[in-house]
Amino acid sequence: MRMRKKKHLDERLEACSNLIIYDIMPYNGDIKAIFGEEKPMYMEIGCGKGRFITETAKQNPKINFLAVEKNLNVLVLAAEKVKEAGLENVKLLAGDVNMLREIDSVTKCERIYINFCDPWHKNYHAKRRLTHKNHLELWEKFLSSSGEIHFKTDNKNLFEFSLNSFAEYDMKLKNITFDLHNSKFCGNIMTEYEMLFNEKGQPIYRCEAAFRGAE
Amino acid sequence: MRMRKKKHLDERLEACSNLIIYDIMPYNGDIKAIFGEEKPMYMEIGCGKGRFITETAKQNPKINFLAVEKNLNVLVLAAEKVKEAGLENVKLLAGDVNMLREIDSVTKCERIYINFCDPWHKNYHAKRRLTHKNHLELWEKFLSSSGEIHFKTDNKNLFEFSLNSFAEYDMKLKNITFDLHNSKFCGNIMTEYEMLFNEKGQPIYRCEAAFRGAE
Repeated sequence: MRMRKKKHLDERLEACSNLIIYDIMPYNGDIKAIFGEEKPMYMEIGCGKGRFITETAKQNPKINFLAVEKNLNVLVLAAEKVKEAGLENVKLLAGDVNMLREIDSVTKCERIYINFCDPWHKNYHAKRRLTHKNHLELWEKFLSSSGEIHFKTDNKNLFEFSLNSFAEYDMKLKNITFDLHNSKFCGNIMTEYEMLFNEKGQPIYRCEAAFRGAE
Repeated sequence: MRMRKKKHLDERLEACSNLIIYDIMPYNGDIKAIFGEEKPMYMEIGCGKGRFITETAKQNPKINFLAVEKNLNVLVLAAEKVKEAGLENVKLLAGDVNMLREIDSVTKCERIYINFCDPWHKNYHAKRRLTHKNHLELWEKFLSSSGEIHFKTDNKNLFEFSLNSFAEYDMKLKNITFDLHNSKFCGNIMTEYEMLFNEKGQPIYRCEAAFRGAE
């Protein structure tokens, strides 16, 4: 389902312009400089309409959050949520995650959230999955030595694929759950999609993965 | 469901006595000596009625198979299958797996199969699960450096528990599948239980796990 272009998109983006980064290159070498104040940084890859990042940022004022989203129609909703909440610890990076490959070296972030990313269910699209080896190499570049990927999805096949991909990349897994909402996990913050799945009673899969060099 | 004692159990066990080991202690230090001919050895922990071990042994004459089973009522069925097939590369060890703790040092085996073990669904019984850390320590003692645990179950909760247990023990995971019978896995040999689950269309979970010292 492709979203139609939002009404007055340009004006609405303009009204949030202080929250949105369109070009990562000026931060080559130090993406943390996106934020005024130096704090640990967490990233969300594909923040969608921004509920997760906004609520997470409210609860964690000592962390800076960089949310990446390529679809401007949803990024604008996320930006408006951040603005409405008056959060100073969230910035939105507009564009495809692959733009992150262009940066040479980076200041490291402490966590990467991947929530309900596109499962790309056809095998010949496997490389596009955000948990494919090609992307894990990218996350490894961005994560600090103690950093973790926090991954959740409603898609069983994607979860199976991702566990194998993490394991094959020799990552360290923990807190694997096949039914997040009926697990012992505390403090889960739902995305917009997750709320829909939850209403339908569909299980949510989740795990955490760290790079082994990270020990 | 507890099985009633089989008719003529003692006589039937006696008729297979050359296949059954009741006391592991004489093989302390060298369990491979159970077999006449020196070959790589695979173990199955809890062989039940023995379909899996018998069929696997038929297909792999260059491997010796040691099947452990504490319930004599099913062990006798496994022994009769082995005898019927005229297999010389299978022996059955009668008794609880914990007897294996009594041995000091062992010649290593190359693979351990754990098929449809008791899920012990109550949390206070978690230690009894064959994929609990307490048992992983035991399998680590028995497995060679390149050895692997091949684990399958129909129980989703046990599978979730086991993946976490393997990961927490810092084992290397591979070939994780949430639906073995609809996966790419070739050459699966079904146990008696598995055939029942399969008829009902229930998914079978499977993975392989190696100890990291094993690299």
